[in-house]
Amino acid sequence: MDDPFVIVGGDAAGMSAASKAKRENPDLEVIVFERGDWVSYAACGMPYYVKGTVEELDDLVAVTPDTFREKRDVDLRTGHEVVAIDSEAQSITVETDDETFEQSYGALLIGTGARAVHPPFDGLDLEGVFTLRSMDEADAIETYVTEREPETAAIVGGGYVGVEMAEALIERGLEVSIFEMLPRILQPFGEAAAEIVEDHLREQGVSLHLETAVSGFDGDGHVEAVELEDDAVTADLVIVGVGVAANVELAEAAGIEIGPTGAIAVDEYGRTSAPDVYAAGDCAEATNVVTGEPDHVPLALTANRAGRAIGSTVGGTPTLTGGTAGTAIVKAFDFGVARTGIIDHERAREAGFDPVSVTIDTSTKPHYYPGGAELTVTLVADRESERVIGASLVGQEGTKRIDTVATALHAALTVAELERLDLAYAPPFSPVWDPVLTAAKVLNGKL
Amino acid sequence: MDDPFVIVGGDAAGMSAASKAKRENPDLEVIVFERGDWVSYAACGMPYYVKGTVEELDDLVAVTPDTFREKRDVDLRTGHEVVAIDSEAQSITVETDDETFEQSYGALLIGTGARAVHPPFDGLDLEGVFTLRSMDEADAIETYVTEREPETAAIVGGGYVGVEMAEALIERGLEVSIFEMLPRILQPFGEAAAEIVEDHLREQGVSLHLETAVSGFDGDGHVEAVELEDDAVTADLVIVGVGVAANVELAEAAGIEIGPTGAIAVDEYGRTSAPDVYAAGDCAEATNVVTGEPDHVPLALTANRAGRAIGSTVGGTPTLTGGTAGTAIVKAFDFGVARTGIIDHERAREAGFDPVSVTIDTSTKPHYYPGGAELTVTLVADRESERVIGASLVGQEGTKRIDTVATALHAALTVAELERLDLAYAPPFSPVWDPVLTAAKVLNGKL
Repeated sequence: MDDPFVIVGGDAAGMSAASKAKRENPDLEVIVFERGDWVSYAACGMPYYVKGTVEELDDLVAVTPDTFREKRDVDLRTGHEVVAIDSEAQSITVETDDETFEQSYGALLIGTGARAVHPPFDGLDLEGVFTLRSMDEADAIETYVTEREPETAAIVGGGYVGVEMAEALIERGLEVSIFEMLPRILQPFGEAAAEIVEDHLREQGVSLHLETAVSGFDGDGHVEAVELEDDAVTADLVIVGVGVAANVELAEAAGIEIGPTGAIAVDEYGRTSAPDVYAAGDCAEATNVVTGEPDHVPLALTANRAGRAIGSTVGGTPTLTGGTAGTAIVKAFDFGVARTGIIDHERAREAGFDPVSVTIDTSTKPHYYPGGAELTVTLVADRESERVIGASLVGQEGTKRIDTVATALHAALTVAELERLDLAYAPPFSPVWDPVLTAAKVLNGKL
Repeated sequence: MDDPFVIVGGDAAGMSAASKAKRENPDLEVIVFERGDWVSYAACGMPYYVKGTVEELDDLVAVTPDTFREKRDVDLRTGHEVVAIDSEAQSITVETDDETFEQSYGALLIGTGARAVHPPFDGLDLEGVFTLRSMDEADAIETYVTEREPETAAIVGGGYVGVEMAEALIERGLEVSIFEMLPRILQPFGEAAAEIVEDHLREQGVSLHLETAVSGFDGDGHVEAVELEDDAVTADLVIVGVGVAANVELAEAAGIEIGPTGAIAVDEYGRTSAPDVYAAGDCAEATNVVTGEPDHVPLALTANRAGRAIGSTVGGTPTLTGGTAGTAIVKAFDFGVARTGIIDHERAREAGFDPVSVTIDTSTKPHYYPGGAELTVTLVADRESERVIGASLVGQEGTKRIDTVATALHAALTVAELERLDLAYAPPFSPVWDPVLTAAKVLNGKL
């Protein structure tokens, strides 16, 4: 390959690919075009910057631009926006403040990420109304909280960004309300987990408004209130966190196939429908390991791993990008809540399963050993195949145990096989029957 | 089955079987003969009773004899020792203080457990020299520490009992020495993990004597010193923890097959070579999920699970007992250390593998998030098949992550498959690449 490996987008997928491709093949020319200034940053850490746990925004940068350029020999160009792909000519069009130019590629990786959904609300551009997707937005929120000293915050959307920002803003001394259209927060985590987190959020002083549609924001220059159907609630800071949408426009305009989820369709090596064009990260689909179907779960590990695999492939070692189990974990004040696979019965049925599930309350340690915490486990299986298809865990410790179930999903284990796993036991760490095993025992009794 | 389900031994395997059989088939008569007084107790909690973490020995009892008798309708007879099995007549001989009688059985479960190995040391019966296997021994040690106020303790054997008792006795104010014949403690956990624990034990004031053979104990009535080859070390309390031996004499005398490990041979349903005779728990073998060969790993979960499965089978629902991955976890003061599968290269080669391994130092949380701890992961694979065959983890938190690898072992995942697992990430819980995934990445680079 004489032409360079060109990467569009300098965050998790793009920079992982750049680094790995150079390690695989040091002679390969690697160019990264990033339209912004920040590269290789931990977006998931941003709520903790606003909270104050992370002191400097720069702390969230995993690898600095200088390191990429000098140590890793990656031609990283920030402030460069790729505006068109010509996949027949194997060339892209790049714009900066000063110029527009063409760049040919031997292989191209589209890592354009996703953006926060901006619902059609009135007053979305009032001062004090934010989404949280970029480092600049994190910076702006933190600055606003520090300089303007808002007293009341409204969070629109009870997803993980909403929950994490509620914790951050309570810590900063604000009164916080969450507005969620659905009957519960953290929808993908299932009802049992959501209810426990809801109770805990209320205990921590968060005001929850479920089944409540926001129609817009009111204010004079800066936001003063959230408008509901028949009501208005005071708020001098608003975070809109109602989901993300894959940035597919560049790919779509180039005739590259978009998948059923609305993100860029890719095969198991991350290849798009155009020759030598790959896509990875929040703009791309990944195969759901439970359903075998394309899914769009824009999370950091999937992006990092797919980017790395594509870097390896382009560097000369074909490497599978791996699928997604939709595994996620969120801190909500003193609680952790984790999920993997398919929890929602309706979604399970849509995917062709006949779901059966149990929810059990158990403990992270034996009754006689101090310091254990209650752990609530929901485990879901398909009645016919007896395969485990999903789980959630919620409690004050031990929620990382979701990884056991995530691993079981990758291996397509049955409930009985899950029950037979030889997991680690000693009183300071676990009951004899780990909570995941106990859930499997109980679920097995229902099959 | 008109004759009862008879169980020899009233701890983990036996009582799990009794309870499960009655639940499966309430009409089944279930008799348990236990030669001692204690039933259904958590032996793994005994060091924490000596330490003082667990206040009452009774707290370690999971289910009381009264509950078994009255609520679960199990005919539990303590103080009854089974002295012979006639597998042709389907009958056993039982002795109490008062009588000897025969009892016929429809099905028999041998759950005789294991005993502490008593090496041929001089002075083993001096006062103040203990093994720790039974509740009575735990009681005796605690009483001795409280009433006799020993100042120096010698622990013979650096296995998990030795490490846990070192912590317990340091907490009780004693000066503690561990004597280990091998070049390192915690042999089955591998060298990297052992070294870290050794350093930590020394930091906590434990005096480690590695490659040091004990020849006996000296004293006048009660122990005063540990005798080494050319030396003697003061000790007024000694714990001998040099391993356990399966109690197979009863089975062996009945002509029941003993397996290559010295424990009772069983099939995947826990059946011995005699018709309708099962064995489970510390006296029985289990299939190692990595090698597919019989193994003897006398740990609580294996006993509980096999007992429960046999109860289910005898009750009418044939149920696999499950294999063992040799998964174990131990607390050593502020550290946890965990293992699964095969870590030792020599043992791996004996089992027909070509082992390749990595040891990495990683962190339980991202660099920017407070409270993470170093976690050292050793991951071992077979070079040809690329299957993961074992792992150890050691650190101040996060060692329960061994369960991810244990699950991978059951599913026979390759290193690349392990690397592609979708594990849970959020900054308060994990780096983007969970330590197990990082180890898989590095090991994959060596394949």
